[in-house]
Amino acid sequence: MGIVVVGTVAFDTVETPFGKGENVLGGSATYFSTAASFFSEVSLVAVVGEDFPEEHVAFLRSREINLAGLQRIPGRTFHWSGRYGYDLNEAQTLDTQLNVLLAFKPQLPPAYRETDVLFLANIDPELQLEVLDQVTAPRLVACDSMNFWISSKPAALREVIKRVDIVLINEGEARMLTGEPNLIKAARSIIAMGCKRLVVKRGEYGVLMFTADTVFAAPAYPLEEVFDPTGAGDTFAGGFMGYLANTGDLSEEGIRQALVFGAVMASFNVEAFSLDRMKRLTYREIEARYRSFRQLTSFRDLPAP
Amino acid sequence: MGIVVVGTVAFDTVETPFGKGENVLGGSATYFSTAASFFSEVSLVAVVGEDFPEEHVAFLRSREINLAGLQRIPGRTFHWSGRYGYDLNEAQTLDTQLNVLLAFKPQLPPAYRETDVLFLANIDPELQLEVLDQVTAPRLVACDSMNFWISSKPAALREVIKRVDIVLINEGEARMLTGEPNLIKAARSIIAMGCKRLVVKRGEYGVLMFTADTVFAAPAYPLEEVFDPTGAGDTFAGGFMGYLANTGDLSEEGIRQALVFGAVMASFNVEAFSLDRMKRLTYREIEARYRSFRQLTSFRDLPAP
Repeated sequence: MGIVVVGTVAFDTVETPFGKGENVLGGSATYFSTAASFFSEVSLVAVVGEDFPEEHVAFLRSREINLAGLQRIPGRTFHWSGRYGYDLNEAQTLDTQLNVLLAFKPQLPPAYRETDVLFLANIDPELQLEVLDQVTAPRLVACDSMNFWISSKPAALREVIKRVDIVLINEGEARMLTGEPNLIKAARSIIAMGCKRLVVKRGEYGVLMFTADTVFAAPAYPLEEVFDPTGAGDTFAGGFMGYLANTGDLSEEGIRQALVFGAVMASFNVEAFSLDRMKRLTYREIEARYRSFRQLTSFRDLPAP
Repeated sequence: MGIVVVGTVAFDTVETPFGKGENVLGGSATYFSTAASFFSEVSLVAVVGEDFPEEHVAFLRSREINLAGLQRIPGRTFHWSGRYGYDLNEAQTLDTQLNVLLAFKPQLPPAYRETDVLFLANIDPELQLEVLDQVTAPRLVACDSMNFWISSKPAALREVIKRVDIVLINEGEARMLTGEPNLIKAARSIIAMGCKRLVVKRGEYGVLMFTADTVFAAPAYPLEEVFDPTGAGDTFAGGFMGYLANTGDLSEEGIRQALVFGAVMASFNVEAFSLDRMKRLTYREIEARYRSFRQLTSFRDLPAP
């Protein structure tokens, strides 16, 4: 199974206590597809402007990402500027220049429409709905969203949640979406909106994954050096969905394993600015860190009763 | 192996979004020894005033806690008042009446001095040092502390850390103690102070346990109803040390298992005010929740390389 991802390709300007990256490659679809490309075929849908350099296109192509859905239109590429303090969990947005994103109408090339797996990265939920209308019979659809859409387009977002299998969202956004301070109740309430599964991202505290009757908790990998958390959520989603697309195993066990691969990919991504760590990452390193994750979390069972 | 715990027995007045408990039974040694009593013999060292009711003494006795070290002196019992908002991770202290605690000089009855396991709950580190001078050859010593002692008695606290095996501390306090925002670096720095093992408590996000060359992450048990987090840290420590005292297994595997029992005990404690949940808890429930913890965190390994 291959994956189609619809999202953004962007320039980021990011400041952290450890350095600054100016006009570096970013965007949800960029991070997602790069991470997913370690496990699966990926086809990208996004828009860039005339200023988007061939060097970045060449990088995505080097990851064998299908770029038939990458539109290039007149104007400048989406540009996000943000800053992180020592609490690397929360970005402060300094500037958002939507530019060509204002004219983005996701169009799936015909070859993409029969995809088995679809990821709707964090874009306007009305556009996410338009994408859902273009796919024929996906086996697995997941979406991300953010506080901005929760407050500005709640009805469209609820419609998206009803139509996808898996919702990935930050902890604070889960509370905001439901008005429920207790996260477990918030999770039940989101699943009651119609999705089958909810993944709550908690930054350095890891993730919780819910179905109507299961909960899975995975920590974040403890790192001594976190340089830049930008893209961690999308890299996580890319590893998660990429591994699932590769195995096709949608059992609880299969999905848990994929989730840990997502956490592994995110842990690498934050070790350097932009996609720099992804650019030199090997599959051998990924597997080694998966095994470290097992070491990190394993404890023995009680004897049978 | 039995345990000796030195700490406080107190009255608490606690407000949470879900209710209020006035002048209820509290204190670090109370929570610790009650939790530990499900697994091991426990001997308590603390002080109360003339106002401490027989009913509470009877409860501790019903848990078979040895009270030879419970001093009763003229004056009123230590009283803490605090409030929690919807973010149940952080208490706001409204009032602290130290009362008899001002005169507390921990004296271990002769029968306590040869204890195998000692827990120094959160009290003045100078008193913790006096207790350390009274024990003969403990196999395992752990301590807790708090921000107040980190800033007011840093030298004594460092001396305690050097002389114990395990330090249990909150995440924010680990950062404060070391001046290091990265938690993994903070942990290394605390271990370099001379303890063998560090347990970092992260409230609803669970715990991380460090040695010089291992890390273990355990989530908090996800609960739909958290009524009162008071005493969660001491209940956690009680379950942890109580289980260790019972098995005597100080291997990494044994200590990890004990840590999960600690998390299990804390998860029960927050389900009701004061020690109300502990009062009706059964060992069968504890084991069932341990198994749920395994379900919550388990994921499959990769095939061998």
